[in-house]
Amino acid sequence: MLNVAIVGASGYTGLELIRILHCHPEVAVTCLTSEQSAGKRVSDVFPTLRGRCDLVLENLEPVRVAEKADVIFTALPHKAAMEVVPTFLKLGKTVIDLSADYRLSDPDVYGAWYEKHLNPANLKKAVYGLPEIRRAKIKGARLVANPGCYPTSIILGLAPLLKKGLIDPHSIIADSASGTSGAGRSAKVDGLYCEVNEGFKAYGVGGAHRHTPEIEQELSLLAGAGLKITFTPHLVPMDRGILSTIYATPAKEATTEKLVALYEEFYRGEPFVRVLPQGSLPSTAFVRGSNFCDIAPLVDGRTGRVIVVSAIDNLVKGASGQAVQNMNLACGFPETLGLDGLALFP
Amino acid sequence: MLNVAIVGASGYTGLELIRILHCHPEVAVTCLTSEQSAGKRVSDVFPTLRGRCDLVLENLEPVRVAEKADVIFTALPHKAAMEVVPTFLKLGKTVIDLSADYRLSDPDVYGAWYEKHLNPANLKKAVYGLPEIRRAKIKGARLVANPGCYPTSIILGLAPLLKKGLIDPHSIIADSASGTSGAGRSAKVDGLYCEVNEGFKAYGVGGAHRHTPEIEQELSLLAGAGLKITFTPHLVPMDRGILSTIYATPAKEATTEKLVALYEEFYRGEPFVRVLPQGSLPSTAFVRGSNFCDIAPLVDGRTGRVIVVSAIDNLVKGASGQAVQNMNLACGFPETLGLDGLALFP
Amino acid sequence: MLNVAIVGASGYTGLELIRILHCHPEVAVTCLTSEQSAGKRVSDVFPTLRGRCDLVLENLEPVRVAEKADVIFTALPHKAAMEVVPTFLKLGKTVIDLSADYRLSDPDVYGAWYEKHLNPANLKKAVYGLPEIRRAKIKGARLVANPGCYPTSIILGLAPLLKKGLIDPHSIIADSASGTSGAGRSAKVDGLYCEVNEGFKAYGVGGAHRHTPEIEQELSLLAGAGLKITFTPHLVPMDRGILSTIYATPAKEATTEKLVALYEEFYRGEPFVRVLPQGSLPSTAFVRGSNFCDIAPLVDGRTGRVIVVSAIDNLVKGASGQAVQNMNLACGFPETLGLDGLALFP
Amino acid sequence: MLNVAIVGASGYTGLELIRILHCHPEVAVTCLTSEQSAGKRVSDVFPTLRGRCDLVLENLEPVRVAEKADVIFTALPHKAAMEVVPTFLKLGKTVIDLSADYRLSDPDVYGAWYEKHLNPANLKKAVYGLPEIRRAKIKGARLVANPGCYPTSIILGLAPLLKKGLIDPHSIIADSASGTSGAGRSAKVDGLYCEVNEGFKAYGVGGAHRHTPEIEQELSLLAGAGLKITFTPHLVPMDRGILSTIYATPAKEATTEKLVALYEEFYRGEPFVRVLPQGSLPSTAFVRGSNFCDIAPLVDGRTGRVIVVSAIDNLVKGASGQAVQNMNLACGFPETLGLDGLALFP
Repeated sequence: MLNVAIVGASGYTGLELIRILHCHPEVAVTCLTSEQSAGKRVSDVFPTLRGRCDLVLENLEPVRVAEKADVIFTALPHKAAMEVVPTFLKLGKTVIDLSADYRLSDPDVYGAWYEKHLNPANLKKAVYGLPEIRRAKIKGARLVANPGCYPTSIILGLAPLLKKGLIDPHSIIADSASGTSGAGRSAKVDGLYCEVNEGFKAYGVGGAHRHTPEIEQELSLLAGAGLKITFTPHLVPMDRGILSTIYATPAKEATTEKLVALYEEFYRGEPFVRVLPQGSLPSTAFVRGSNFCDIAPLVDGRTGRVIVVSAIDNLVKGASGQAVQNMNLACGFPETLGLDGLALFP
Repeated sequence: MLNVAIVGASGYTGLELIRILHCHPEVAVTCLTSEQSAGKRVSDVFPTLRGRCDLVLENLEPVRVAEKADVIFTALPHKAAMEVVPTFLKLGKTVIDLSADYRLSDPDVYGAWYEKHLNPANLKKAVYGLPEIRRAKIKGARLVANPGCYPTSIILGLAPLLKKGLIDPHSIIADSASGTSGAGRSAKVDGLYCEVNEGFKAYGVGGAHRHTPEIEQELSLLAGAGLKITFTPHLVPMDRGILSTIYATPAKEATTEKLVALYEEFYRGEPFVRVLPQGSLPSTAFVRGSNFCDIAPLVDGRTGRVIVVSAIDNLVKGASGQAVQNMNLACGFPETLGLDGLALFP
Repeated sequence: MLNVAIVGASGYTGLELIRILHCHPEVAVTCLTSEQSAGKRVSDVFPTLRGRCDLVLENLEPVRVAEKADVIFTALPHKAAMEVVPTFLKLGKTVIDLSADYRLSDPDVYGAWYEKHLNPANLKKAVYGLPEIRRAKIKGARLVANPGCYPTSIILGLAPLLKKGLIDPHSIIADSASGTSGAGRSAKVDGLYCEVNEGFKAYGVGGAHRHTPEIEQELSLLAGAGLKITFTPHLVPMDRGILSTIYATPAKEATTEKLVALYEEFYRGEPFVRVLPQGSLPSTAFVRGSNFCDIAPLVDGRTGRVIVVSAIDNLVKGASGQAVQNMNLACGFPETLGLDGLALFP
Repeated sequence: MLNVAIVGASGYTGLELIRILHCHPEVAVTCLTSEQSAGKRVSDVFPTLRGRCDLVLENLEPVRVAEKADVIFTALPHKAAMEVVPTFLKLGKTVIDLSADYRLSDPDVYGAWYEKHLNPANLKKAVYGLPEIRRAKIKGARLVANPGCYPTSIILGLAPLLKKGLIDPHSIIADSASGTSGAGRSAKVDGLYCEVNEGFKAYGVGGAHRHTPEIEQELSLLAGAGLKITFTPHLVPMDRGILSTIYATPAKEATTEKLVALYEEFYRGEPFVRVLPQGSLPSTAFVRGSNFCDIAPLVDGRTGRVIVVSAIDNLVKGASGQAVQNMNLACGFPETLGLDGLALFP
């Protein structure tokens, strides 16, 4: 039985970690921290937990946290993570970091999109935790940088095409839409029910979203050469889910049939990627609450363009589910442990 | 390992049974039927299941179904259930019936609210499956009548008060509101997204809803004398959840403090009833996807009235979760097996 | 052409006033204030207005506001209103106050539910602005206290019964549910999309909601004697609308048919009250964006109880629409001017 | 005062026509037809209308309809429209057709996407009713083919760029998302609340949507040469609104600043197109219930691509509002008559 701490447990990804780990047979959650709600029971913040997880939220004192846990999930804003992760590592803990702090391998890129990186030494040791393309390295890793939600949906959507050189790497347009939980749980007018409900909008248009360099880094690695993409996120009036509709110009002639076969081959044996049969399309509703990524690749017969549609739950495969998958790999558990739950529909 | 059949698997309660049983360690789902979608894979009807449950939906031929299963869940419309349940029983199967057909112990009452009962013989043997008030009888039962969703929330909300004679049994008003999944999955204009969304309404006002006699039957048993209630259901623009706000005139003076203590005592040890501490109120959001019933009893100090607020997920504690709880009791499994999952929030 | 100011224009009721007055042929909006957004164009705060109303939001300096307007709508929090209304009145302006500050005729009652009243002198002159029961006094009034949203739905729902002495005035239970815009536009975690969406809950249960004394004051006047009610508000995951389901014990035997006839007679000629024919029930969806109050009275044949269901749009008949109706009456315009718009459905 | 008939009045676009025309000072709605609900009052089908429009829905007998009206809106499914429009025209009526039947100027294209065209003679006379690019021809027209919802948002979004030759016409990708009212009001499982709610999905991916040829026809005319596009519609869990995010490769170097200036110039004086200032982005929430099209053009500085985001209410500018705008032009009324209403927010 492994002891687990969740640092930043009063946000949605923190709660989702608790929910998932509650059904994990090999771990016990022993420590939860929250700056805003320290001193309260977590079940007073999230009444879903009442009677099942009534731990008191603590202040974030890294050494005390490390005393209580073997594995630490850091579900903090960027910068806050890299302020504590070095301590956890020094004390011999395994860290799954859900922030952006260890995702960009080049500290200068991090500096350009966020701020000066405080911990470039550990950055080098961090493994980007997308198991489907980096499984071997995640096994036994001490610091896993859990991927962003949009990047997960887009990288999984394009990996087979880029690996096989089937598309022009400079032609990629990723048009994504996310449920509102992606915006977090802090109080602001923009996030109020009446501001979000019954509306659909784009934001960060034109390359402004901070997930852009993360997506480009990983797609470039897959393509074997640097590439830039156009990435447009949208906000959907729903709680959970990301759907990415991705466009590219084929490098060679393609058919939907061949693409589906390619994707099935590429993802054969993957427990959490479902390549849909020709004619089917993903919906975020079909992955809600589960760790699946559903993908449908196809060719627009009229224009010849390749289109890939992928769907995940942003809080599960896009955050906490993937984090548990990474923990399983890092700690030597079966990869799917605790992640068997089917999507909740409706 | 027990083999389980779900008869009527293309509705929402059927799907929810599959979702819950998927994580149940002692059963295997071996047979699914659907009149509308026979011949299709269940995962083509509900893509959430793809790769995890890809059984082909069959026509409902009772003998064939019975050959494949030890326990049969009937998730059919009323009347359709009592047309097949006798066969299942005759063949020695255990039946958990989610329809209304075996809930009303008096066939004349059934006749007055539905139509002539076809199977009064088995009606006598059926056990009303609300474990918190009928656990002993459910253990080992061969035919369990799984309670309706509204009745579950109201009966659990009032049981302690009626058992202790603390309210005037003729003063009960139950004002309930349900998510839209309660209306089922058949095509009709009334159920369209745009007809339901952004609206709130009452329906069946004035004692017209068919759950009324079921609620009255059980409350009367608890009170030890016949009673009638005013019950008003409402429709909420959300998928899941029932909240009941119940009003009654106290028979003796009461305080919120005493009521909370009474409820805590009454439900002590119950795995799925959470009595909230004074000052807390339930929300359907906090039980979504879980088998909990959250209850807050209190006294309106200004008028002296007793008010109880209770919340369940209509598809879980109000249907399929409770059905699995009943199966566990009927078959001798630990009562909570497969029902550990925490609510999905947000 | 009358000049109109809206004090507190960056909230939802302020915006709704602008929307309605935009189509009013006899007024021009000449001044908007906002503490939070002073200096911005109102159309930058609410892009719906772009190109149609691009006024710059001003700080609230009462004398300057009064210079620019003949009629002033105060859409402020309680207390803030009574800090400025005296100045407006002194300068000869007509004030329609949407706050709670002038609704409760007894300053001690105000003190008990809010805080010490600062302006009891004007309180005496204020007219409670529910046109259907106070039309004569509103005509020509200088200070109209615009009713609360819940009170509007409940008082209109009960007025005929209380006026005619048809119910026991001590038996009233009002169970209401409101869309989320009723909670206003300030940043707080409770109001976030993911906290509200897909959930239904009661709040302020047991006589804690501040609309309680307002409802009781007006119902007592209608009944001709003091009364107390049980009032339970609920929160619905939708933007707009209030539905009240109201229960009472009849004083004399009643039938649905007679009640409908009584209500039709009572509200004959009222431009904004629609008594539904027997068998029809209101929905908030059918009044969204309009100034209607839809009402259905009926008798629960099984228990004899009287039930009234009423629906309004909380931002229109429950706030800004009624405020414009009051302005029309106070200023001598036809009562329905600017309020002709039909509900937006879907 | 013009008499107006709405053929197909029990759908959402029919209802929206009634809502808008109710505030139009120069027309009276005198005849409504509905195949499904003939014999019922329209206010029994849509209770929003009660007391304001209580006409009885009639069967569609073209000659009788023509006797009652000068202008006829046909809000019918494709094919059904061209079965009756010839009669209306023969009898001298002005027809605004909201179906697809007269939008595609080439009957063979219509045949390829729908079925054999029944009325090619009138097809030649029909004017495509997008006032911003075809105003002169609409004035006085006898048969106006009202544009589709997606096409309106995309054509208005691209017109300035194509007119000026600023983008490669073969590079266009239009990624659009629509509220659920676009799917109409017929009973089907796919449209149920629980099937749509809390989900986001693409449909008709790869050039399958029937609006594709309409978009290409108009964009080709603007570009002065044939072009093909990739068009992907998505379904959003909300009632109303279409947002199109459109991508193209610039033909010459462009900057956001220049594009905004170009769009402002192109749409100067247009009453219903709002070009947003640099840095602002449209949301469907800001046009809900109004006839506006909000547009933001910009350049993705990292990839050089041009992106245009446009938003409309699919039932207003995308259907019934534009139909009234066309009627105004065709009948010689001021173009904005009856279309002054501001968006309903929240």
